[in-house]
Amino acid sequence: MEQYVFGVDLGGTTVKLGLFRHNSALVSKWEIPTRTQNHGEHILADIAASMKAKLQEMDISPEQVTGAGLGVPGAVLQDRIVKPCVNLDGWGGNVAGELSRLCGLPVKAVNDANAAALGEMWRGSGAGFENVVFVTIGTGVGGGIIVGGKLLSGVHGAGGEIGHIKVRANEPDACGCGKHGCLEQYASATGVVREANRLLAGDEPSALRAKEKVTAKDVFDCAKAGDALAMEVVNIFGEDMGKALACVSCVCDPDVFVIGGGVSAAGQIILDVVKASFCKHAFPAAEETRFELASLGNDAGICGAAKLILG
Amino acid sequence: MEQYVFGVDLGGTTVKLGLFRHNSALVSKWEIPTRTQNHGEHILADIAASMKAKLQEMDISPEQVTGAGLGVPGAVLQDRIVKPCVNLDGWGGNVAGELSRLCGLPVKAVNDANAAALGEMWRGSGAGFENVVFVTIGTGVGGGIIVGGKLLSGVHGAGGEIGHIKVRANEPDACGCGKHGCLEQYASATGVVREANRLLAGDEPSALRAKEKVTAKDVFDCAKAGDALAMEVVNIFGEDMGKALACVSCVCDPDVFVIGGGVSAAGQIILDVVKASFCKHAFPAAEETRFELASLGNDAGICGAAKLILG
Repeated sequence: MEQYVFGVDLGGTTVKLGLFRHNSALVSKWEIPTRTQNHGEHILADIAASMKAKLQEMDISPEQVTGAGLGVPGAVLQDRIVKPCVNLDGWGGNVAGELSRLCGLPVKAVNDANAAALGEMWRGSGAGFENVVFVTIGTGVGGGIIVGGKLLSGVHGAGGEIGHIKVRANEPDACGCGKHGCLEQYASATGVVREANRLLAGDEPSALRAKEKVTAKDVFDCAKAGDALAMEVVNIFGEDMGKALACVSCVCDPDVFVIGGGVSAAGQIILDVVKASFCKHAFPAAEETRFELASLGNDAGICGAAKLILG
Repeated sequence: MEQYVFGVDLGGTTVKLGLFRHNSALVSKWEIPTRTQNHGEHILADIAASMKAKLQEMDISPEQVTGAGLGVPGAVLQDRIVKPCVNLDGWGGNVAGELSRLCGLPVKAVNDANAAALGEMWRGSGAGFENVVFVTIGTGVGGGIIVGGKLLSGVHGAGGEIGHIKVRANEPDACGCGKHGCLEQYASATGVVREANRLLAGDEPSALRAKEKVTAKDVFDCAKAGDALAMEVVNIFGEDMGKALACVSCVCDPDVFVIGGGVSAAGQIILDVVKASFCKHAFPAAEETRFELASLGNDAGICGAAKLILG
């Protein structure tokens, strides 16, 4: 009898769901809207109903499903408890227990960046390695750390919070976390735009001046087209990110850093500037560490959530 | 039949040895000199002979001994291979295989800071926890990281190299590793003396001016006695160390940081300044992380080496 597992990736706008065979084949993937209102009171019931409907549609009995992994945009304790999620109207609590009750399956919860890390190790750019650090660069900077094939989630919910490694002193502005000088303040999409605007306040010519509102994509596009100011911003991004990953390497010394998230769509230029800075700052033995772009895109979350159940 | 295990801690001057029962009791500990000459060609034979003599002296048959753990002052790959050790005249190679051949026991090698980390987790200040970061502050700064009760040794020999986390930008002097701005350049005994001399070049009064040659111990002693300049040096030490441990926490988020090594003899003042800086820089969820002084002193190495065999 074929066995299956669900991978669910809960985001602020949509819930992505995937049904996998135990042999790792992705059988079906789909999305439903995330109803965040009233502290997300409908979220888990919507997910349970959608999983049930999929099994009926595909004529798979619930007994053939061994469990569901649930990636969430927040801190997770003991594979079950989710701290209130800011972008889900404060939704949280023992979500694994609650979803398990609703769908009748074993459920484990996991932070979304950790899920993506597991996904990339299982089926993406980290495949073949057991020691993988996944970095997701979007509005913020997230991380997922895998040591010996297992997620390193930490004791207080701070494990893999790469975006909050201090990379600069004397930062007057506070990070979202309340502290100052965090990587996320500089090497995120938001940080790149901030740095570009800072340089654009000077009088150096740049193609970026033609943009009404500069985006991180504009900065990387202009840099690739040879714009000196944009390249300076990209180099600053690489310097901060490489320095932080050199710190990560002094702790867990992975086989490979896998870089994903919206900003990583800029491609090879990201690897080039990050690796250059990494080699400048890393402990010499670690200079040969590999750097790869993530390859699963939006599927990383559902894959990793499923992998959490497969073990 | 009672079972035993050896824990061996190889240093540049002496080899410390311990014989433990499997129930964790330390039966005997002793030392022999380290003969470093000629790339340390006598080291392993001396260790094997000393272990054999101890078994005869105590009337224990070799069959009662399940193995020997060997802590070494250098990078270790796959529990066996040691990269050439600078302070052992370039000694290295497959030392676990060689010692095993000489003494007829299973042998595992481990970096000395990692051994101390295991020891403190087993019988010292980290007892009762499975996620422990051990920091040793002496001439340099070393580290050992334990996640889920297991050593995190890394892929390239950079795992736990906490002393080489970058904490300052624009450092003109090179660290021993060849890079610039490493924690070890500031928050080691050497670094504390360097910082004290830097401040003493000014004209602020200080009891340290009465010393012919300032040591790190002088700095901590004077700070505890109320000397303002010495306290400034101690605060700078705490700032750099706390910032680096905040980075460590953003990666592996341990239960407890255990601080050992010669400098930690200064006591509570170390915990006070390091923890203050840590809380300033750490991801908020991690602010409650515990800080403890190491409690095993020079025995940490033999204990951890033995624990490596006990598993």
